[in-house]
Amino acid sequence: MTDHYYAVIMAGGGGTRLWPLSRQARPKQMLRLISEDSLFQVAVKRLEGLFAPDHIYVVTGKELANDLSEQCPNLPKENFILEPMPRGTASVVGLAAVAIQQRDPNAVMVMLTADHFIANVAHFQQLLRAAYAAALDGYLVTLGIAPTYAATGYGYIQAGEQLGIYQGMGVQRVLRFKEKPDEACAQQMLQSGDHAWNSGMFVWKTDAILAEFARQMPALNAQLQEVAQAWGSPRQADVLDQVWQQVKPETIDYGIMEDAQNVAVIPAAGLGWSDVGSWDSLFDVLPTDENGNLVMGGHHIGLDTRSSLVYVENERRLIVTLGVEDLIVVDTGDVLLVCRKDQAQKVRQVVHHLKQTNQAYI
Amino acid sequence: MTDHYYAVIMAGGGGTRLWPLSRQARPKQMLRLISEDSLFQVAVKRLEGLFAPDHIYVVTGKELANDLSEQCPNLPKENFILEPMPRGTASVVGLAAVAIQQRDPNAVMVMLTADHFIANVAHFQQLLRAAYAAALDGYLVTLGIAPTYAATGYGYIQAGEQLGIYQGMGVQRVLRFKEKPDEACAQQMLQSGDHAWNSGMFVWKTDAILAEFARQMPALNAQLQEVAQAWGSPRQADVLDQVWQQVKPETIDYGIMEDAQNVAVIPAAGLGWSDVGSWDSLFDVLPTDENGNLVMGGHHIGLDTRSSLVYVENERRLIVTLGVEDLIVVDTGDVLLVCRKDQAQKVRQVVHHLKQTNQAYI
Repeated sequence: MTDHYYAVIMAGGGGTRLWPLSRQARPKQMLRLISEDSLFQVAVKRLEGLFAPDHIYVVTGKELANDLSEQCPNLPKENFILEPMPRGTASVVGLAAVAIQQRDPNAVMVMLTADHFIANVAHFQQLLRAAYAAALDGYLVTLGIAPTYAATGYGYIQAGEQLGIYQGMGVQRVLRFKEKPDEACAQQMLQSGDHAWNSGMFVWKTDAILAEFARQMPALNAQLQEVAQAWGSPRQADVLDQVWQQVKPETIDYGIMEDAQNVAVIPAAGLGWSDVGSWDSLFDVLPTDENGNLVMGGHHIGLDTRSSLVYVENERRLIVTLGVEDLIVVDTGDVLLVCRKDQAQKVRQVVHHLKQTNQAYI
Repeated sequence: MTDHYYAVIMAGGGGTRLWPLSRQARPKQMLRLISEDSLFQVAVKRLEGLFAPDHIYVVTGKELANDLSEQCPNLPKENFILEPMPRGTASVVGLAAVAIQQRDPNAVMVMLTADHFIANVAHFQQLLRAAYAAALDGYLVTLGIAPTYAATGYGYIQAGEQLGIYQGMGVQRVLRFKEKPDEACAQQMLQSGDHAWNSGMFVWKTDAILAEFARQMPALNAQLQEVAQAWGSPRQADVLDQVWQQVKPETIDYGIMEDAQNVAVIPAAGLGWSDVGSWDSLFDVLPTDENGNLVMGGHHIGLDTRSSLVYVENERRLIVTLGVEDLIVVDTGDVLLVCRKDQAQKVRQVVHHLKQTNQAYI
């Protein structure tokens, strides 16, 4: 049934809130945070059984491609699509759609993230099958996440009437996309029952999404067509380089989804999804010890230590915590971060400051 | 006036509450915590002008003597008195008294600590002059510290009637020595107005203190006399080694002072004295920045960080603190300590645990 189904993993940079572990040269998806495998490897492995390796594409930057390819040697090298420079998710989707469309005019593609955690892989694959079936009916399907708390860090999708049941899952019309809300708004949406988090994962026919590019983003569409002309020829890399210089950065949400036609959502519950966005989010993903602590690496002695995270790269270092609670301690050798758990989002500000002041450590 | 005045600096081991900076091989007095000079160097320097270098003695262990001597090369090597093993402060006092008595039968000696901070050095020297004058009248003079809060970490001295005024300072009879009190008792003594902290510093004529050894500690006195017989001869070190094996450990407070005759106290105020006993005590000694933080070494970025201490040995490490208050962070390379300020005393327990379990890092 899924001979025409292709997966595209977006694996660019990012993850500044997991600094100092995540760096420019070692972004979030390459970290072995959750398991022996990196988040990227886990993202590839959870497609096993549903996609053959040659049906899995990766969009990333030149500087990361080799490392990612080494992490997943079973993926064909030619399935790594290299963006000359980051231009937002709209161009990533467009580029992947162009490449896949040339290979298979009847393709359905799923856009996936490389750096999210999903506990229930079987349920996830079931969701991808349902979305595939809905996409065959012409819908642009967004994979929603049934919210478990009033998150202010995610965008939301408001779901309307049911469009059908595919593979046992209800598919609903999307009424509205909403950007990251404030606390009050998030509470309201949580209680409404008809809102889902925007996971950033989408399923659609390549011709359907390319039609939306032609309709809504004519400039980008023309640029994509220029790339498409050269795709597979010796001029491919040069043309992509030249064209990408001109591409205006835009997100797929703002550029396409918000005003697209036939947009549907499957609000998935029970996936155990987390964006592993910041140090505190690891408490949602990993099991804690009897004191509620997450101790990762190193030699740790905790006295009167509760609900805290200790991450140490150097196994020979001794870390002693004494009388601390809700604290995050991350030691990467060159950098030590000590952070109150509820301030973990602000790590991003530190990275920004270091970048602004031209300091090392990023 | 002070030709017969000798200083004895007790510089044995100790300082486990300043772990992981203080170690067995690098005890508290050798640390450069307060200034470019170590606490020991500071202790020697604050005697300048009052004692010639050859009037300054140091009692320490064999394993530390070379390092201490290197820190203060102006002190004669023969003024380092080496205890074969630690046997408590009573034996330290007795040994120093024996050595100095042989050199100068009319000697007055002051016992000093190597690891305390004194802000007002001029006032300190005035105090030593007053105590010298009182000692010449036969008193065993203890240097008290007028308490500034209800400390439970120090012993106390209750002062009685005034015995005289020496060099402008009131000298009072000691009514009682009291060991470290509980919180309620400390409050009571603070409010009484007639209690001083026991600083562990004493001034007396050597013959007066040796007479007390003879009266109160006859066994130790006999051992000291055996050492005295050999002192200055080629047999000195061997005899000391043999005798010290038999010495029963005892403190000068319990062994001598509590039941001594003619014990006087000068309760000094305004010395700016601190025992620099634990990490939190550094806040009493060193100036903090505008957020109440003490940052020592390393490269530190603090966001929303207050009343906290950051000590880093490696100048090239970046330490980021985010949303923390009343926290102590000490990074010595092999060990990282993260400790709530009001738990800093418990660092001793960690060292004890490491010792018990035969671990490194001490």
